[in-house]
Amino acid sequence: MTAPVGAPGEPARTRGTVLVVGTGLLGASAGLALRACGVDVALDDPSPTARALARDVGAGRLAGADEEPSVVLVAAPPDVTAEVVAERLRAHPGAVVTDVASVKGAVLEDVAAALARQGAGGAGARYVGGHPMAGRERSGATSARADLFTGRPWVLVPPAAGGDRRERAPGAGEGEGPEGEGALQRVLDLVADCRGVPVLMGAAEHDEAVALVSHVPQVAASLVAARLLDAREEAVALSGQGLRDVTRIAASDPALWVQILGANAAPVARALHALRSDLDDVLEALDALAADGAAVGARARVARTIDEGGAGLARVPGKHGTAPVPFEVVSVLLPDEPGSLAHLFADVGDIGVNVEDFRLEHAPGRLVGLAEVSVLPGGRPRLEAELPRRGWRVAG
Amino acid sequence: MTAPVGAPGEPARTRGTVLVVGTGLLGASAGLALRACGVDVALDDPSPTARALARDVGAGRLAGADEEPSVVLVAAPPDVTAEVVAERLRAHPGAVVTDVASVKGAVLEDVAAALARQGAGGAGARYVGGHPMAGRERSGATSARADLFTGRPWVLVPPAAGGDRRERAPGAGEGEGPEGEGALQRVLDLVADCRGVPVLMGAAEHDEAVALVSHVPQVAASLVAARLLDAREEAVALSGQGLRDVTRIAASDPALWVQILGANAAPVARALHALRSDLDDVLEALDALAADGAAVGARARVARTIDEGGAGLARVPGKHGTAPVPFEVVSVLLPDEPGSLAHLFADVGDIGVNVEDFRLEHAPGRLVGLAEVSVLPGGRPRLEAELPRRGWRVAG
Repeated sequence: MTAPVGAPGEPARTRGTVLVVGTGLLGASAGLALRACGVDVALDDPSPTARALARDVGAGRLAGADEEPSVVLVAAPPDVTAEVVAERLRAHPGAVVTDVASVKGAVLEDVAAALARQGAGGAGARYVGGHPMAGRERSGATSARADLFTGRPWVLVPPAAGGDRRERAPGAGEGEGPEGEGALQRVLDLVADCRGVPVLMGAAEHDEAVALVSHVPQVAASLVAARLLDAREEAVALSGQGLRDVTRIAASDPALWVQILGANAAPVARALHALRSDLDDVLEALDALAADGAAVGARARVARTIDEGGAGLARVPGKHGTAPVPFEVVSVLLPDEPGSLAHLFADVGDIGVNVEDFRLEHAPGRLVGLAEVSVLPGGRPRLEAELPRRGWRVAG
Repeated sequence: MTAPVGAPGEPARTRGTVLVVGTGLLGASAGLALRACGVDVALDDPSPTARALARDVGAGRLAGADEEPSVVLVAAPPDVTAEVVAERLRAHPGAVVTDVASVKGAVLEDVAAALARQGAGGAGARYVGGHPMAGRERSGATSARADLFTGRPWVLVPPAAGGDRRERAPGAGEGEGPEGEGALQRVLDLVADCRGVPVLMGAAEHDEAVALVSHVPQVAASLVAARLLDAREEAVALSGQGLRDVTRIAASDPALWVQILGANAAPVARALHALRSDLDDVLEALDALAADGAAVGARARVARTIDEGGAGLARVPGKHGTAPVPFEVVSVLLPDEPGSLAHLFADVGDIGVNVEDFRLEHAPGRLVGLAEVSVLPGGRPRLEAELPRRGWRVAG
């Protein structure tokens, strides 16, 4: 489910103040995006350094003692998010509270439990769980950027629909802020101002989804990369682009990932058990082949693993969230000199072909690179004809 | 172990004719590279269409009935390579025979067995196993290119060192061709003419290495991608760059991979058993956390998985086979218009900064992209200062 996204220059949809609690990469980036369209942003963080840093990069002003925000954006580490959300629901009865934690079920449960303990369960109707699918390999306000969320899915978990809650007269809840759909609308406005693409999902549905598209790939990348720890130097030297791609996200922050995987343990474990069952099948087949190269049925099982992977991959959306387009690739040999990519792209632009994707393939041991330029079908013959005339070496 | 690589315009090192047997992507690419430096290349393939195609793309001339090549390059599918190598060792007693199969131990054993059956064991001293670490996602002579091997490692397995063999007078073996180091030198010359980077390894060492850097990543990518087969549409729609990178090679050809994994079953199984042992550990920890969020020791085990992955990844060589350099990344918002990348790279070139790496991050649902330009430390502040003056939106 998507909604239109604000274009540059449009006035902000958000009314009133947004209080950002937690001014790391995500909180500060939201502050920058909201400030860019004129929203009043107040910044809070348990670390005085972190909040001053966020102010200094332009993410907003320091929060005062008695803020009355319309929306509180909790961008705290995952393992304290629920606590901070519950605290802010109580502290700001006129506000809608949302968060950015990458796991939603555990946060929702913990918020409900914290509110119930204080007899303030109704305040949960002002909480809208959120998860912008955006991030960087670096953290902190200094890595923040106003366009971090631009065009990225931003999952929102609407407050549970309860007849009693929706019918309730304004003000009859634990606070004065809007509840249910009214609360959701305020967060939709915030997402629009951050130029995100809102995607409404249930918490369980979200957690199953990110287990598959984010958490399991993370574990798999780490496990494959860990195999290189004891590998011989000569073996690692044979690494190519395939290994680099598979293991790139293994560089992620362990402290953060312990929190994420810990908070989404059940869905991740379910998906990993299924993966292990597939792994056991292919391992059994490989063990059989290692013992007897003619083992009956073993090769079919190995083929099934590769087949199913290809079929699963075919479901992953391509550029701009559309179905994958079969781009054609033109490969150009690139001297390792300043400006060589610039000249290449200038020539491609002159020829009038749009670059749909681009990959630099590094050549180990040599000072050359291979530029793989993906273009729409039709662009390839033109590049193959024109680029050599301009002095480029193109694959024959 | 590396040797210098020929520069453009240097005369060929290869003397005499190279007979390429198997004119798919690798065979035809070698033909193109060798033809480019003037080597006589004869093409053979069981398929008349395949060999005519290779000739038509310029990879060489069709082989006659009585070729006397100095080197035979067997570029057949892995599962028939040994048979073809043995056959060619017998058919061309003056030639050195090499191959390109991505598994070496099984081929070496099968060649030796085939020769022993015919009482021609000595001919094995003219066989040099080879494996160029190069490939493309497409196959066939029409995808061939002269620069496929440029700068890529090309593993060579020298004939087993045996005192009797090396001391033997010329001609005392099964053929008239050079043996041992003499045979190796001919193949080193061929690799140099193809602009590859020779890497000498034992067969077992090679097979362990490619299990880790190529075959295990392939299986892992396929297993992760296969999990998406039954995923809900909404889940797959949340896919980001991390998933795309981890699963990219899952698009590989099942028929080829069954041959590769089947021929390297034991080393791949060993590495996958080790990976499964790590997976079992992290799964046990996640199961414990799913049952009891406070399970003692479970989070430490999860952290270890991510930690070890990061440490393993740190061993993967970066650009040009050197140690990874900590590039700095400048992110630029890119309108989806023809020529926008061209203009960006032209401006980066004008500013005088060299692009070390480049990634296009696609923004699902929006017609914008994010160009992540990696530069050496020092280049980033210049780009961040200069690019906005030229109208680009750069991360703050």
